Amino acid sequence: MSDNLNTNQNDNDLSIPIKAAADARDVVALVDLIDPLPRSEALRELLHLSVEDRVLVLSLVPAELAAQLVEEAPSETAADLVEGLTAIRAAEIMDELDSDVQADLIGDLDEDNAEAILSEMDVEDAADVRRLVTYDDDTAGGLMVAEAFSFSDTQTVGKVLRDLASDDDDFERYRGQHPYIVDEDGKPVGVVSLRGLLTSKRSDLLTSIMTPPLTVPVDMPLFNLEDLFDEHAFLGIPVVEADGKLVGVVSRAAVSAAALERSESESLKRQGVVGDELRSMPTWLRSRRRLAWLSANIVLNILAASVISAYEETLLAVIAIAVFLPMVSDMSGCSGNQAVGVTMRELSLGLVRPSDAFRVWLKEVSVGIINGIALGILIGIVAWIWKGSPALGLVIGLALALNTILAVSIGGVVPLLLKRVGQDPAVASGPLLTTITDMAGFFFVLSLAALMMPWLV
Amino acid sequence: MSDNLNTNQNDNDLSIPIKAAADARDVVALVDLIDPLPRSEALRELLHLSVEDRVLVLSLVPAELAAQLVEEAPSETAADLVEGLTAIRAAEIMDELDSDVQADLIGDLDEDNAEAILSEMDVEDAADVRRLVTYDDDTAGGLMVAEAFSFSDTQTVGKVLRDLASDDDDFERYRGQHPYIVDEDGKPVGVVSLRGLLTSKRSDLLTSIMTPPLTVPVDMPLFNLEDLFDEHAFLGIPVVEADGKLVGVVSRAAVSAAALERSESESLKRQGVVGDELRSMPTWLRSRRRLAWLSANIVLNILAASVISAYEETLLAVIAIAVFLPMVSDMSGCSGNQAVGVTMRELSLGLVRPSDAFRVWLKEVSVGIINGIALGILIGIVAWIWKGSPALGLVIGLALALNTILAVSIGGVVPLLLKRVGQDPAVASGPLLTTITDMAGFFFVLSLAALMMPWLV
Repeated sequence: MSDNLNTNQNDNDLSIPIKAAADARDVVALVDLIDPLPRSEALRELLHLSVEDRVLVLSLVPAELAAQLVEEAPSETAADLVEGLTAIRAAEIMDELDSDVQADLIGDLDEDNAEAILSEMDVEDAADVRRLVTYDDDTAGGLMVAEAFSFSDTQTVGKVLRDLASDDDDFERYRGQHPYIVDEDGKPVGVVSLRGLLTSKRSDLLTSIMTPPLTVPVDMPLFNLEDLFDEHAFLGIPVVEADGKLVGVVSRAAVSAAALERSESESLKRQGVVGDELRSMPTWLRSRRRLAWLSANIVLNILAASVISAYEETLLAVIAIAVFLPMVSDMSGCSGNQAVGVTMRELSLGLVRPSDAFRVWLKEVSVGIINGIALGILIGIVAWIWKGSPALGLVIGLALALNTILAVSIGGVVPLLLKRVGQDPAVASGPLLTTITDMAGFFFVLSLAALMMPWLV
Repeated sequence: MSDNLNTNQNDNDLSIPIKAAADARDVVALVDLIDPLPRSEALRELLHLSVEDRVLVLSLVPAELAAQLVEEAPSETAADLVEGLTAIRAAEIMDELDSDVQADLIGDLDEDNAEAILSEMDVEDAADVRRLVTYDDDTAGGLMVAEAFSFSDTQTVGKVLRDLASDDDDFERYRGQHPYIVDEDGKPVGVVSLRGLLTSKRSDLLTSIMTPPLTVPVDMPLFNLEDLFDEHAFLGIPVVEADGKLVGVVSRAAVSAAALERSESESLKRQGVVGDELRSMPTWLRSRRRLAWLSANIVLNILAASVISAYEETLLAVIAIAVFLPMVSDMSGCSGNQAVGVTMRELSLGLVRPSDAFRVWLKEVSVGIINGIALGILIGIVAWIWKGSPALGLVIGLALALNTILAVSIGGVVPLLLKRVGQDPAVASGPLLTTITDMAGFFFVLSLAALMMPWLV
């Protein structure tokens, strides 16, 4: 188990003194309370306050600290925080954020709010943001910062060294970027290394020491960007529009953060939580979102239950079967979900594609046969001993064995098929699998029981 | 849906020509086939081959390419690949990897294999690896590289600039690191910025331009490292032993990669896949691991089913109830899992701690009451219409409402309680929740039915 320093220390609740300092408009006390905390912990305390108090705190503390808290917050929470502020204050906080974070935030606000804030921002920054929000989130355009460390093809090594050495405020924004050289049309034509800069004369033209740059199109998806950063040690890659113009730089850090966010959101969706819920959101919203998914699930459950309904007579004759119906369907559901989990992982690692469905099925069915036989024997013995009927043991064991094989076959393949037809496998695989394994489980148990009736009663 | 370039292109199977080239020992053809592929895709093709053929390919291609494939592979697969090679060849491949990757790999090999490879490696590298494997995986020590870009406190700016400009092979290893200054005891005393280097004279002592460094202890856990990199723009942070000595540097990239891996492995564990299975592993191993989790699950299922067994008479009297038993338990299980999902997310974001259990429960129970009433009414109406009995509708609806409230209460809190007692919430929350909601669901339906018997028959 990871032993977590933050979890052990400092378990007293700071939200009460924070609220008191905010109510007293005591900025010094507020900063003293919040600033020493790791940002995740400061955010946690903030979210313990009411919505009004959160906004009050963000209005009082220095814009840089407020910006760090907004940046730390999950996207919807961040949007809620910013929507409570005045447009002028929101714009001050925006100024402290990178352009990719600005664009994500603006994209999450309602249109009037977004316009009000943009109109208070620096004109150039606002123009960058207006452009960035047009790109899809999980593409190079959506992940890049608009600020590139670029030089024209007529400039010299000395110019870059002067820029690097200047204490320009913008300097920090280029951290991790190499100097990119663009031609008169704004197209990147080269990149220079630090080593190149240090081993050249200050009067040398940048074009004399540059190497051709790797660039990516604005619409390159996250998945491919992950691959590129895996293969190359670059900290950033320049991004170009369809016309070849340099429009920004996507960093390794932005790609990693997006990959982590995607992984966490997929794992939530698999449990039926769509839309990145946090408990600091309003109850009715959380309730409504969860209900939407559950209501769809009720329909699937009715479908499965109708199988039991069709066999009520069989059940009446051998009521002990009712004890094992949920067991068989639940156990196969678990087996199937294991196969779903492995396929989802292999999809996210890029190790399988929809076209691999048959290969996956072959691999899965062999595990299904082994585990089906093992689990079938196990549960068969349990049923035999518990209810004193070898025939019942045979029915239940055989049903679980068959349903396990079916469940892992479907579980392994269903995410690939969903992806092929353009559905999100993280959302739909689980409910689809469970419905099929429930129906099939009930059917196997009850139809085998109907067949074996003379030996069961 | 993310539209995936890699998924659409190049769907023909390259593993056949790769095998042919390997069999013919045609290294040029092999490199021509593999090198142009993104590394994840090259690995995917490699894993389509038999274990012997995979090893053959890795023996033939240049060590650098082999190293990239080994690095791309999930850890257990990487270990399997390396174990098939001769120790000399494995050491050649090791030489191309960073020390943190070397240590991860060596740690995954069996001891004899590991020793054989270490004895073929560069003596200094081997010593680094022997030290690195002693640290826990998800700590600064486990994630750092042993190579630090360090200088003594008697050296000058000119020395650093010369080192930066040299085309030393080691240079690439320091990418993203700042020059760290260590005193005669090996303790870091300062760090210098690129800007500081460029604005100083070559003869200036490094100590004259350095600022105090942020350092982390070797045992700092991943969670805290994520916080630190969130708060600071650093690309790397120096790592010190208990005695204050500089022993390595942990990079932002290594921390992000570890966070992503942890997130994916947690999401697998929640589905009952423990130990990062891939389909390229041997069937018996995959089967055995999955069975271990499923067998534990069978015991929990028997516990839940025993509730049904206790009420067989009630069931016999109103057999229609059997249709709704799995529905009630399954629906509540889903509701509870949503709450588990949200808590797991808030845990991983650092927004809740075990001590917040009561606060979480309050937030969860309000959603539970709303959703319980909504779902209860819905399923109650379904049961009434389907089986033509208002009393049955009341029993089923009430049971689902009560069980939903219970399920979200438990689901929200159980991961926190498990964490408090030192258990892994990702593994145990699901089975524990399902068992409780199954038992309670069966109990609510059957005991309410027993109470309402006069109106049901």
